[in-house]
Amino acid sequence: MFQTFDATTRPDQGPPRLAALRAEIAGAGLDGFLVPRADPHQGEYVPAHDARLAWLTGFTGSAGFCAVLADRAGVFVDGRYRVQVKAEVALEVFTPVAWPETGLADWLIEALPGGGTIGFDPWLHTAAEVEKLREKLDGSGIELRASDNLVDRVWPDQPPLPAGRVRPWPVANAGESATSKRQRLGAELAGAGHAAAALTMPDSIAWLLNIRGEDIPKVPVPLAFALLHADGTVDLFLTSGRDLDLGTHPEGAVRLHDRDAFPEALKAQTGKVRVDKSLAPLAVSDLLAQPVWGADPCVLPKARKTGAELAGTAEAHLRDGAAMAAFLCWLDREAPGGGLTEIAVVEALEGFRRATNALQDISFDTICGAGPNGAIIHYRVTEATNRPVKPGELLLIDSGGQYLDGTTDITRTVAVGEVGDEEKLCFTRVLKGMIAMSRIRFPKGVAGAHLDTLARAPLWLAGQDYDHGTGHGVGVYLSVHEGPARLSRLSDVPLEPGMILSNEPGYYREGAFGIRIENLLAVEPAPALPGGDAHREMLHFRTLTFVPIDRRLIVTAELTAEERGWIDAYHRDTLAALADRVQPEVRDWLVRACAPL
Amino acid sequence: MFQTFDATTRPDQGPPRLAALRAEIAGAGLDGFLVPRADPHQGEYVPAHDARLAWLTGFTGSAGFCAVLADRAGVFVDGRYRVQVKAEVALEVFTPVAWPETGLADWLIEALPGGGTIGFDPWLHTAAEVEKLREKLDGSGIELRASDNLVDRVWPDQPPLPAGRVRPWPVANAGESATSKRQRLGAELAGAGHAAAALTMPDSIAWLLNIRGEDIPKVPVPLAFALLHADGTVDLFLTSGRDLDLGTHPEGAVRLHDRDAFPEALKAQTGKVRVDKSLAPLAVSDLLAQPVWGADPCVLPKARKTGAELAGTAEAHLRDGAAMAAFLCWLDREAPGGGLTEIAVVEALEGFRRATNALQDISFDTICGAGPNGAIIHYRVTEATNRPVKPGELLLIDSGGQYLDGTTDITRTVAVGEVGDEEKLCFTRVLKGMIAMSRIRFPKGVAGAHLDTLARAPLWLAGQDYDHGTGHGVGVYLSVHEGPARLSRLSDVPLEPGMILSNEPGYYREGAFGIRIENLLAVEPAPALPGGDAHREMLHFRTLTFVPIDRRLIVTAELTAEERGWIDAYHRDTLAALADRVQPEVRDWLVRACAPL
Repeated sequence: MFQTFDATTRPDQGPPRLAALRAEIAGAGLDGFLVPRADPHQGEYVPAHDARLAWLTGFTGSAGFCAVLADRAGVFVDGRYRVQVKAEVALEVFTPVAWPETGLADWLIEALPGGGTIGFDPWLHTAAEVEKLREKLDGSGIELRASDNLVDRVWPDQPPLPAGRVRPWPVANAGESATSKRQRLGAELAGAGHAAAALTMPDSIAWLLNIRGEDIPKVPVPLAFALLHADGTVDLFLTSGRDLDLGTHPEGAVRLHDRDAFPEALKAQTGKVRVDKSLAPLAVSDLLAQPVWGADPCVLPKARKTGAELAGTAEAHLRDGAAMAAFLCWLDREAPGGGLTEIAVVEALEGFRRATNALQDISFDTICGAGPNGAIIHYRVTEATNRPVKPGELLLIDSGGQYLDGTTDITRTVAVGEVGDEEKLCFTRVLKGMIAMSRIRFPKGVAGAHLDTLARAPLWLAGQDYDHGTGHGVGVYLSVHEGPARLSRLSDVPLEPGMILSNEPGYYREGAFGIRIENLLAVEPAPALPGGDAHREMLHFRTLTFVPIDRRLIVTAELTAEERGWIDAYHRDTLAALADRVQPEVRDWLVRACAPL
Repeated sequence: MFQTFDATTRPDQGPPRLAALRAEIAGAGLDGFLVPRADPHQGEYVPAHDARLAWLTGFTGSAGFCAVLADRAGVFVDGRYRVQVKAEVALEVFTPVAWPETGLADWLIEALPGGGTIGFDPWLHTAAEVEKLREKLDGSGIELRASDNLVDRVWPDQPPLPAGRVRPWPVANAGESATSKRQRLGAELAGAGHAAAALTMPDSIAWLLNIRGEDIPKVPVPLAFALLHADGTVDLFLTSGRDLDLGTHPEGAVRLHDRDAFPEALKAQTGKVRVDKSLAPLAVSDLLAQPVWGADPCVLPKARKTGAELAGTAEAHLRDGAAMAAFLCWLDREAPGGGLTEIAVVEALEGFRRATNALQDISFDTICGAGPNGAIIHYRVTEATNRPVKPGELLLIDSGGQYLDGTTDITRTVAVGEVGDEEKLCFTRVLKGMIAMSRIRFPKGVAGAHLDTLARAPLWLAGQDYDHGTGHGVGVYLSVHEGPARLSRLSDVPLEPGMILSNEPGYYREGAFGIRIENLLAVEPAPALPGGDAHREMLHFRTLTFVPIDRRLIVTAELTAEERGWIDAYHRDTLAALADRVQPEVRDWLVRACAPL
């Protein structure tokens, strides 16, 4: 199993570690120290070496930080983790803080009315983050001071940095050689007058060099740093002692160094070096003689998938869709009897994906919420929360797989037995929004901020909404959450052909049920229509995910003719796409699940 | 008549004036001079005194500027005015420039490869505008130098600044006394640590002091400057020699000065004075000892209409709606015969509005486009372009009135005789978008950028779109175009209760026809719905405009049940609202025009 269900920390681990850290803080002449959840690569998953927040506090959420002072230690967590944090940390020494409602600066100013000096590890905070915090502390007498990591000093058995296997990713999958990428982006740097760009995002580096790795769970990347030079060559920094095959690169084009050599290499750069202010650790710009702010040059090209990447992703979705269909067929057979639990469902789903013999990893921990647990947006089941799957309730399953040719991410909400009318009406509204996004065409220049409303309007009209974005970018055998574009009110990055985005509206009624329906979409040029404006370049979405949407939850009378037509066509396409990829029993199930409304 | 149809300039006026200006430029040791369309108040309408661009070039459009160099003079106009500018300026000396496709900085850099000094009048350009231009000219050797206005030196018969009548606007209309506004905004300045705010927008000042004026057409404001102090007192600067009644203000609260005293008053300010960078002329901040950038403090409060303003506006719309109904009834009777022209229609419409005995002015020149003229988005008919209204064509009429209790703005597109199916399908799509915006409810925090798409989606799905925003803010017996919120992809100002916005999607087929349907909407809290999220604050729009939408152009089969229900309810409400306000013939017409689909 890729997924585990155990608690990995205990509340009682925290107090002695906190005491040891406080002694270090005092010894360093500081009044406090910041312990973020982030590693130097600012990703969603961190290696055990960097799990300082969990080690110190016991809190295992995917975002948050601890501010340790002499007399208090605040654990800042967002709305997702308000309940979890209380169960995971020792409340007699750690104080959960509702963040971002309470900001770190305001909390520090209140805690240190006379001012003070707070240490932080400049490898774990971005330049933008530190700048913003310093601005807010301006005039408070509180100073931020870069320091080596004091947690590491008191963590005797800190795991080493990972040194996983690295393999080339075939150009047949990538659709563009690493040489072409290096030269194209190097020329772009040269055109901007930059000597190099400092790369700190592992997925940028993996994309650029067409390599994949195994340093962290769920995201197939090595934890690397790199310098991309204007001449198209690359200095790559990796922990040594690993099973490494970078593929073939022209002589001298890709120079390998130990990870420890990165700081000195930064110091040695003489020209202007581009640094992404909101992605790169502050240490990077501090070490450079001439840092200039600019976007990581890989981010946008990586988001514009090649034809080969789109074809691979489409194939991965059919493979994953067949596994999902087999899973849903199994679920329909087993669940109404009432003997399943959330964990059993997660295990079964991973089993169906493993049976493809192509699964490299799951793309994130499966979210499987029965009944009221479905309303917890980022729910991850543990032995402690595991709930039976009961007839009469909804079951929400959000999951995905990492395959060599692509990354999937799909959510289906299914009825277990007969469920109530209110659940069906809410499901139908969510579906209407999901269809509106799937069907839209839009002119070039439009961004996620402009489309997000389409998915919400049916809920809004009923006085309902959901408190998350409608969709995120998705990588190709890379991170399942990828920038720069999103389907979100906050995203003004114009959508471009080749981008892959999730479309996942939902509805959550606390203590009762949760609903989410998610397909992945690829942006592509829209074919011209008769009567359409000839001069207008328009785009649309191609659906990549083909898995039945639970017809038993659809109130057909609430759909327009176009919406009904979309669903029937989607199910017809799904049946055609999956029928030859599944066993006879699943095929029979698919025929029923894909019947017209 | 408020509206005129004559050309007010001739192309041959330009060359001798340009020659005289060039002599001044050379005499001042400059290499060029900028002549914008703007006056110091950055409004849509400028007094004759400030019509320098029209005087110099002959170009009468509502936006644009001329850059005069020794060897060339570029007249920068946007897409609306590409045709008009060629007819209005002497092309042997003026070169039309497609703006913003070609920026001023790029044009100057190409024209002056060796650099040079360009003069400009700092009262006619905002600080933001000059800053942006200077940034773009950085390193080009081209310098911008503030100067007195060289056009004024060579304009012997330049009209004087206006000095129109000023009257108090009743607090019964305003819903808040000037004293309350002054004190409320003064306290806000004090809270921000600002000693005062420099006000340069006439509608801000008119709103703040509850006064109205007659200095320019269409917008009932005096062209004033003001200083609002943190103690809530105001220094008001107006040209003297006018019929002036400011109403009653507490002793010393509103101090009147001659307009010429404004620069010295700015120089005399000692504390921090707030200046709106994108609204105030550069001269203002240059004259202040301690300017600080910040929004004009009146803009947002002015946009949040009081209950009295909303009630007045609703009444103005019923009055205006009755006039519109009488007009449309007349049009239906007269137009199919084929004897009307665009000018005759505009004259008739103004006549129906005047017959209310309440019309103070029209709120902008009526846009009345028959057949292909309807596709010219900002068409203003002149004797030269006047087109017969022919059976078989669409007629687009966008117009509005200024009444003491409110400002209206309405567009209707009507069929003259029987029109083609394509026109009807396009009209129905525009209508679907207009209904989607009218019906939506949305959570607090949503801005125009997030809603704009709702009005476009039906067109997008057919490969069509329109090249203007969906709506703009509207004042109350003030400017028909008012900030800060808009229904536009570019507007991230959250909508708030009390804001009045237009909702005017359209579709334009060049050389064939134009369609636009426009109602005004007021933002208000949405009533709770059963099953809606109890914790979510939601807003919706209340429609203010009640005038039939041409049923003959609606393809009923293309509407959803909800859309059809909206139209029928709208027409039922319209009939109920207007029936008692119109003559029997119009009432009969209304009954037919408001029949269910």
